[in-house]
Amino acid sequence: MGLHRVVQPAGVLPQAAWRLDASREIAPNEVRIRVQRLNLDAASFRQLSEKHGGNGDAVRAEVLEIISTRGKMQNPVTGSGGMLIGVVEEAGRRSPLGLKAGERVASLVSLTLTPLVITDGLARWDGRSEQVPCDGWAILFARSIAAVLPADEDPQLSLAVLDVCGAPALTARVVSRQVEDRRRAGDPTPVSVAVIGGAGKSGSLSLAAARRAGAARTVGVVPVAAERDALTAAGLASVVAVADARDPVGLSTAVTTALGTPADVTVVCVDVPGCEHGAVLATADGGTVIFFSMATSFSAAALGAEGLAADVTMLVGNGYVPGHAELALGLLRAEPGVRQLFAARIAAD
Amino acid sequence: MGLHRVVQPAGVLPQAAWRLDASREIAPNEVRIRVQRLNLDAASFRQLSEKHGGNGDAVRAEVLEIISTRGKMQNPVTGSGGMLIGVVEEAGRRSPLGLKAGERVASLVSLTLTPLVITDGLARWDGRSEQVPCDGWAILFARSIAAVLPADEDPQLSLAVLDVCGAPALTARVVSRQVEDRRRAGDPTPVSVAVIGGAGKSGSLSLAAARRAGAARTVGVVPVAAERDALTAAGLASVVAVADARDPVGLSTAVTTALGTPADVTVVCVDVPGCEHGAVLATADGGTVIFFSMATSFSAAALGAEGLAADVTMLVGNGYVPGHAELALGLLRAEPGVRQLFAARIAAD
Repeated sequence: MGLHRVVQPAGVLPQAAWRLDASREIAPNEVRIRVQRLNLDAASFRQLSEKHGGNGDAVRAEVLEIISTRGKMQNPVTGSGGMLIGVVEEAGRRSPLGLKAGERVASLVSLTLTPLVITDGLARWDGRSEQVPCDGWAILFARSIAAVLPADEDPQLSLAVLDVCGAPALTARVVSRQVEDRRRAGDPTPVSVAVIGGAGKSGSLSLAAARRAGAARTVGVVPVAAERDALTAAGLASVVAVADARDPVGLSTAVTTALGTPADVTVVCVDVPGCEHGAVLATADGGTVIFFSMATSFSAAALGAEGLAADVTMLVGNGYVPGHAELALGLLRAEPGVRQLFAARIAAD
Repeated sequence: MGLHRVVQPAGVLPQAAWRLDASREIAPNEVRIRVQRLNLDAASFRQLSEKHGGNGDAVRAEVLEIISTRGKMQNPVTGSGGMLIGVVEEAGRRSPLGLKAGERVASLVSLTLTPLVITDGLARWDGRSEQVPCDGWAILFARSIAAVLPADEDPQLSLAVLDVCGAPALTARVVSRQVEDRRRAGDPTPVSVAVIGGAGKSGSLSLAAARRAGAARTVGVVPVAAERDALTAAGLASVVAVADARDPVGLSTAVTTALGTPADVTVVCVDVPGCEHGAVLATADGGTVIFFSMATSFSAAALGAEGLAADVTMLVGNGYVPGHAELALGLLRAEPGVRQLFAARIAAD
């Protein structure tokens, strides 16, 4: 778990630590990665960018400052990190990760708990994109997870998919369970799914995963007409609706209109605060809301559902589900619509 | 839903509003309560008390200031509120709540979304307890929930139970489901449950609910010896363990030692920040963590589980589950240990 890398405060896990020891020498159960690129968490990048009014130099300076001070990339305001891509430099003889020197990998655990040192001053990054080319090293622990990048895919594309691979995996699990429950109860009602932020990375994968898991009807909710057109063209949702996710009544009306009923499963994939109430209102009694956005407020969700007397199950979107990397890369391969949206997003970055 | 009572910002639900219109006249679907007592949320009261160094007059002044400014009692720092007790003064002719003038009720929706006016300056409150005797009025909406207080119970005791009645109800649902899944799969492994903060209000009810729902083995984790003795005497848990919930390794070791395995279901009922990682570590793969504490950090839970590669389902503790008031009051009646702990806690207040 990397407890020996925690410098301050003592006794907490690496993710909760203020500072990690990122020294280069690895323990027998660790792996050192030569880092080539960071992928900052969207909420973190937005906060930094807004704080500095879009000034890329200032954003770069603050990211460098965070990493050198904390020994990891964890935005002190949002609490979030991101992920990295690199090449295995050295694998300890007792590491259980099965990695070999020279393999190109993406780390599937957050940067918030990954010891990290940057050696090039981020000189190749303009501070204006979540994708950060860099040189340096990072340490993986025994319980970390890393995926070897497919040789036949653009690494940037694979990285973008792996970054959010927990979302489609958990969506698939929840939808499958709902479908199975209905079948077992002899209830012929089809399962309906709403994905808020359906044209985004985690959103488009979640839509594809929901359909494959047996959702009969899906709606992708997007904020603007351009995303509506892109998601419609990708063909990943039964219906595409435009609504502001922060407007509870507007959002729930859009979902209910699109599906004909409230959603059995609502997946929140938009990184803006204030979407909790709309998601709860858009969900049927007995249904489930999965929150993947790091902008989710725990108390707003808990008190909102209580205040609405809404009998919904609310899940904290766990980024780890066994098999999540394979499932997400499989969707990229099998669903042209997913590839199309990811490619467009990367090109726009 | 009370949208017409939202003053600022427009369009949000009452819980998310900065300010509500708490005027006395009710709409045909509303109910006005003559308020007799507020029960402040524990996290909120602690924050206020610590901020003012235990100065009761300053705490009282700030609570009055919050209520008069916001038209509701919602701590701006913790985001939480509490609940209230009072007598039905007037029920609109189209209110679906089934309340009659003169009935003594507790509101089961949070104060964070309840229009409230205090008329006695909180003169009878010393600012040193979560229980706030007062005079004033509050408004219930059509979708609010209120429970008529049992005539044969001390109202303060009933209120304390109803305040946390969502916790035992959701615990019972999750444990029952786990038991049923095992039975269906022909898996004879008994279901084990850990309740962090087991001697507290929501904790003791959750322990009792877990046992009745079929948990074969339960552990109540408490922070100090006095609580260990009280919970042991109450007889609500198979084992009682002492551990600091903020120490992930200490907590998970205590739970695993007590149960012989990690817990299938872990229920977090302690109102201190930093318990997310320990709860995840204490839970078996494939298990469930239910977070009831308003001090829970969404991102710490999500990133923590991911960082530990922990395949656990994490639930936001929804305070509303159908039948929750009846279930909790039933536990108070049926479980002498619950009554014992609640009575002691109220006496100590």
